[in-house]
Amino acid sequence: MVFGTAAPDTGNMEMLAAYGTDEQKRRWLYPLMNQEIFSAYSMTEPQGGSDPSLFKTHATRDGDEWVISGEKWFTSAGARADIIFLMCTNGMFVVPRESPGVEIAEYPALHNHIRYNEVRVPLDHLLGPEDGAKVLAQRRLGGGRIHHAMRTVAQVKLAFDIMCERVLSRESHGKVIAEHQMVQEAIADSYAEINMLRLLVLWTAWTIDNSSTKQARTQIAACKYTCAKVLRDVSYRALHILGSLGTTDLTPLQAMWAAAPTMAIADGVDEVHKVTVARNVLKSYQPHPGLWPTEYIPAKREEARKKYADLIAADPDLAAWADAARGRPGVR
Amino acid sequence: MVFGTAAPDTGNMEMLAAYGTDEQKRRWLYPLMNQEIFSAYSMTEPQGGSDPSLFKTHATRDGDEWVISGEKWFTSAGARADIIFLMCTNGMFVVPRESPGVEIAEYPALHNHIRYNEVRVPLDHLLGPEDGAKVLAQRRLGGGRIHHAMRTVAQVKLAFDIMCERVLSRESHGKVIAEHQMVQEAIADSYAEINMLRLLVLWTAWTIDNSSTKQARTQIAACKYTCAKVLRDVSYRALHILGSLGTTDLTPLQAMWAAAPTMAIADGVDEVHKVTVARNVLKSYQPHPGLWPTEYIPAKREEARKKYADLIAADPDLAAWADAARGRPGVR
Amino acid sequence: MVFGTAAPDTGNMEMLAAYGTDEQKRRWLYPLMNQEIFSAYSMTEPQGGSDPSLFKTHATRDGDEWVISGEKWFTSAGARADIIFLMCTNGMFVVPRESPGVEIAEYPALHNHIRYNEVRVPLDHLLGPEDGAKVLAQRRLGGGRIHHAMRTVAQVKLAFDIMCERVLSRESHGKVIAEHQMVQEAIADSYAEINMLRLLVLWTAWTIDNSSTKQARTQIAACKYTCAKVLRDVSYRALHILGSLGTTDLTPLQAMWAAAPTMAIADGVDEVHKVTVARNVLKSYQPHPGLWPTEYIPAKREEARKKYADLIAADPDLAAWADAARGRPGVR
Amino acid sequence: MVFGTAAPDTGNMEMLAAYGTDEQKRRWLYPLMNQEIFSAYSMTEPQGGSDPSLFKTHATRDGDEWVISGEKWFTSAGARADIIFLMCTNGMFVVPRESPGVEIAEYPALHNHIRYNEVRVPLDHLLGPEDGAKVLAQRRLGGGRIHHAMRTVAQVKLAFDIMCERVLSRESHGKVIAEHQMVQEAIADSYAEINMLRLLVLWTAWTIDNSSTKQARTQIAACKYTCAKVLRDVSYRALHILGSLGTTDLTPLQAMWAAAPTMAIADGVDEVHKVTVARNVLKSYQPHPGLWPTEYIPAKREEARKKYADLIAADPDLAAWADAARGRPGVR
Repeated sequence: MVFGTAAPDTGNMEMLAAYGTDEQKRRWLYPLMNQEIFSAYSMTEPQGGSDPSLFKTHATRDGDEWVISGEKWFTSAGARADIIFLMCTNGMFVVPRESPGVEIAEYPALHNHIRYNEVRVPLDHLLGPEDGAKVLAQRRLGGGRIHHAMRTVAQVKLAFDIMCERVLSRESHGKVIAEHQMVQEAIADSYAEINMLRLLVLWTAWTIDNSSTKQARTQIAACKYTCAKVLRDVSYRALHILGSLGTTDLTPLQAMWAAAPTMAIADGVDEVHKVTVARNVLKSYQPHPGLWPTEYIPAKREEARKKYADLIAADPDLAAWADAARGRPGVR
Repeated sequence: MVFGTAAPDTGNMEMLAAYGTDEQKRRWLYPLMNQEIFSAYSMTEPQGGSDPSLFKTHATRDGDEWVISGEKWFTSAGARADIIFLMCTNGMFVVPRESPGVEIAEYPALHNHIRYNEVRVPLDHLLGPEDGAKVLAQRRLGGGRIHHAMRTVAQVKLAFDIMCERVLSRESHGKVIAEHQMVQEAIADSYAEINMLRLLVLWTAWTIDNSSTKQARTQIAACKYTCAKVLRDVSYRALHILGSLGTTDLTPLQAMWAAAPTMAIADGVDEVHKVTVARNVLKSYQPHPGLWPTEYIPAKREEARKKYADLIAADPDLAAWADAARGRPGVR
Repeated sequence: MVFGTAAPDTGNMEMLAAYGTDEQKRRWLYPLMNQEIFSAYSMTEPQGGSDPSLFKTHATRDGDEWVISGEKWFTSAGARADIIFLMCTNGMFVVPRESPGVEIAEYPALHNHIRYNEVRVPLDHLLGPEDGAKVLAQRRLGGGRIHHAMRTVAQVKLAFDIMCERVLSRESHGKVIAEHQMVQEAIADSYAEINMLRLLVLWTAWTIDNSSTKQARTQIAACKYTCAKVLRDVSYRALHILGSLGTTDLTPLQAMWAAAPTMAIADGVDEVHKVTVARNVLKSYQPHPGLWPTEYIPAKREEARKKYADLIAADPDLAAWADAARGRPGVR
Repeated sequence: MVFGTAAPDTGNMEMLAAYGTDEQKRRWLYPLMNQEIFSAYSMTEPQGGSDPSLFKTHATRDGDEWVISGEKWFTSAGARADIIFLMCTNGMFVVPRESPGVEIAEYPALHNHIRYNEVRVPLDHLLGPEDGAKVLAQRRLGGGRIHHAMRTVAQVKLAFDIMCERVLSRESHGKVIAEHQMVQEAIADSYAEINMLRLLVLWTAWTIDNSSTKQARTQIAACKYTCAKVLRDVSYRALHILGSLGTTDLTPLQAMWAAAPTMAIADGVDEVHKVTVARNVLKSYQPHPGLWPTEYIPAKREEARKKYADLIAADPDLAAWADAARGRPGVR
């Protein structure tokens, strides 16, 4: 947080940089960058989870002001933010948290449940075009998802370092625990998973740099559900290897594990990202005609027989082999 | 806790019931059963994890008293207990928590780090025989492990109920989430895993009732690592399906998930129990002589040929089939 | 096969026993039981997988005969059967395999692709009522699925025995491989999984015996996808532990592994059974009213405060504790 | 095989290229490259699995010849090879398969069991230095393992293509199966796993190109066990999605699945590679002194208090916050 690279500020700054007017940038972007103010992002609604088609919060124009009513859920750090980026059905608005009508519920403590009761903001608090909320949200989330993945790489690397130091520092059953095979497997599996996640994130970031978040959306989605899984698996192994100490709050591992499921939910649940990947991947495939796939071996063998008919006719051994193969298509 | 069925009291009561003198039972067992007092169990040492061969805490007899010195780690609820069951290298002792020399460290908060500095207790505070600590500990842990498994069944059943209620109560992408296949898979997998764990625990309990904790130790060990896994998996699915609400502390799921790794550590880490199961299971097997296993197909086929030599000699078709089979041992 | 307990005959005999006339039993059931004849079960169609609503094979009555046309796929042992139980959209028929018009395609070799070209059978070759095919199929499959599970228990027990014998018979890196922890984990995991599958199958069989296949259908479905998974996992571990020998056809393990995926497909794919379990389980749950689940902690705490209002009013310490707890719902 | 890139020839050619004399290259390397001859690699011994310290096959010098005796197991394609690269305890030898004394057992059919009974070869059939077998074997296997990984990437890509084509070509329960969520998950998981494996292999190959097989041995080991896992998982999903067709030998999927376990055994079992990775990784870590890890939060907090003592002394709010935090180390 010391470095200004924490969510939700990062994503909000990206939106401001991309869609803010000069005046909006001056008023909010630079103070956010300097950490003079903090922000929140208010999107999810209690009845709607993260399916935007079910959202209801709406802004109505009334003279020089927008009047906003609705109910949002899980607005991270909403109670402590100076400004809230509020997704309405008809646009993305910047709402000072102290505006009259902003009512923050007692629960949950960290990710707030907020009611907006006829909250009034000036016209210039609309960010980007009217009705542009979904475009801004995608912009924000596309980047945000790979930020999550990058932070995950750092988290699991820390967990791995703690685990590796510990296995050299403890003994059980007559040897340092680093020499027990089940411990070695935990290290080896984590090594492979962390490096593969890191490479996946780098590949995705390289793709974004060379095209756009939109064109990299299949890869971004894969980063998102993969980092959630690796975070659970590696933080578990590290915590487990620290034994009773790992279950206390005396190291970072218990908090890392306890928070790991959030990674599979924030900015879209894994299920949604998996459907996205499947649908995008399938755009480059075609159904096969008829009953059999392109790789149907009897058909490929028949083609080969036709193509090499002259060779087979000239070589009785080859012909006998080809005839025998007909009855056992799997033999190559 | 209201019902007096919580750890660590249950296991401690079992030890008292099995090894306590009448006076010890009167003094401690009945007050524990009535919840007039609470107890702790002080076994693990900071340098030794749960490997008892590395423990150092020791009691020295001095006239009418035992004088105990040592350092224990992760004594659950030690700071709030009235009496502590303290495992020494030469016996199991009951130590009033307020005895001079009992020093409780600041961290961890719940599972205490305790130094015993020349703590004096009367002679009759030795429970069971001198040098009997390991026997009592096994007695305690054997039972304790299946108690953990039983509590786990109740926990995952609660998680399952919360998940099932929720999937009928929320919609996304045009239908109740119970109708999304990935959600259905979470329910179906949990249904099978919970029921199999429940049956495993019942089978083990039935074996204990019909023999002893000692004879059921392979099954108990399997219950222990299995319940740890099912607790992680089912609590994760339930938390995930509740989405952002699941990650808050507004339902029991976040706490269940956060504490789940403890189940794979408390009363012996999974690795130790897995080694136990493997070693016990292998006691009823013998190595095969020579290079090939008992189920080596060419040898079994040769035996069959010998056994049915008359039949084969009388039937040329069968003989031809048997000859052809020699070259393809896997064909039946 | 020697014992007459192999699919597909077992399920076909069950249908005959339940729905056959005395004459049909005399003609087909007793010869099947005596293994004088063999049978096949022809259900799946090439375009339809195992979704019966897509099936097209139909029987038309023509005087004293039914005339059947259609195309079936994956009729196990169809080419070697004496009689075929043929599922038509309007009934279940028994078709002698040598009837004119039964045309068996070259591929696949074992699970046949069969075209029925105006195949004629006498009227009394209809089994059960007209239009009763789905009822008979469910009867057949319900039982058939638990037969699969029972056979799987036997298979994985054999794999386990081979694995346990082998780990005592081989050395590597200075000790018998039974003493390597990764090997011990393979044994311990297999021990737990096999026993849990066994208990699940026994529980299901007990339920069938005390009610009906229909009432046990949730459990039967769980047996089906569970046995498929355990078969893959245990046969893999056993094969792997036998190393290069395991990959040859010199032991039963390679064939067991190679055929394992069939268990997740035959008589309904896993996906269908998982949907069944989810839907059946959810019949005993209700959606919660409003936004919060029944286990919503703040609501439960409020209820408790009301219920114990007198106690709290009388005890300032308890009142202070209860007030503090409001802000931290997860603390108990 | 058409392209000369198949095992075991590739690895053997690498050894010849690296260690062969000009004459040896002329005699064997170029004919192998032109596929005029084929080779085998004879290393594993029946009693020893792949633990070279248990090998016994030995060459004794007798005048102008080496005389080799021993027994090898699982020499892939040994029966069809022109020359066999034979690992002896005292060197790597090239043995023409038709040499007197080379006795190939009936089983297994493809990966041969060979007895070498006083087989004589000229002195110049020793490849590389005397006693150099382990060095040559490491050279061979280092490269060979990443060749396996590269071939696996191609295999799983083929499986993925077959699966993606199929899900667009079949319907069940009212929609194309590509629209069922469990199918989408199979595609999304495979997409991520295949791409991560591909990136891991590319990263490793890049490291080899910029250093050596020896320096890249941790990465190579990780490639080896990872490709074995991805091959099993992806080939399973593809086979399963093709349903009954997938279980036949009419597509490449059944053979891919059936052979998948070999990948976890050939050129070293997964267990050995995992131990290698753990040991290599741990070389860059140190045990922590004392009981607590470097990331022990109370110690880090005390350091911070000392470092910022002036700031804390000057700011009573900050001091109060710091004092409160002492009791809850996990709170940040």
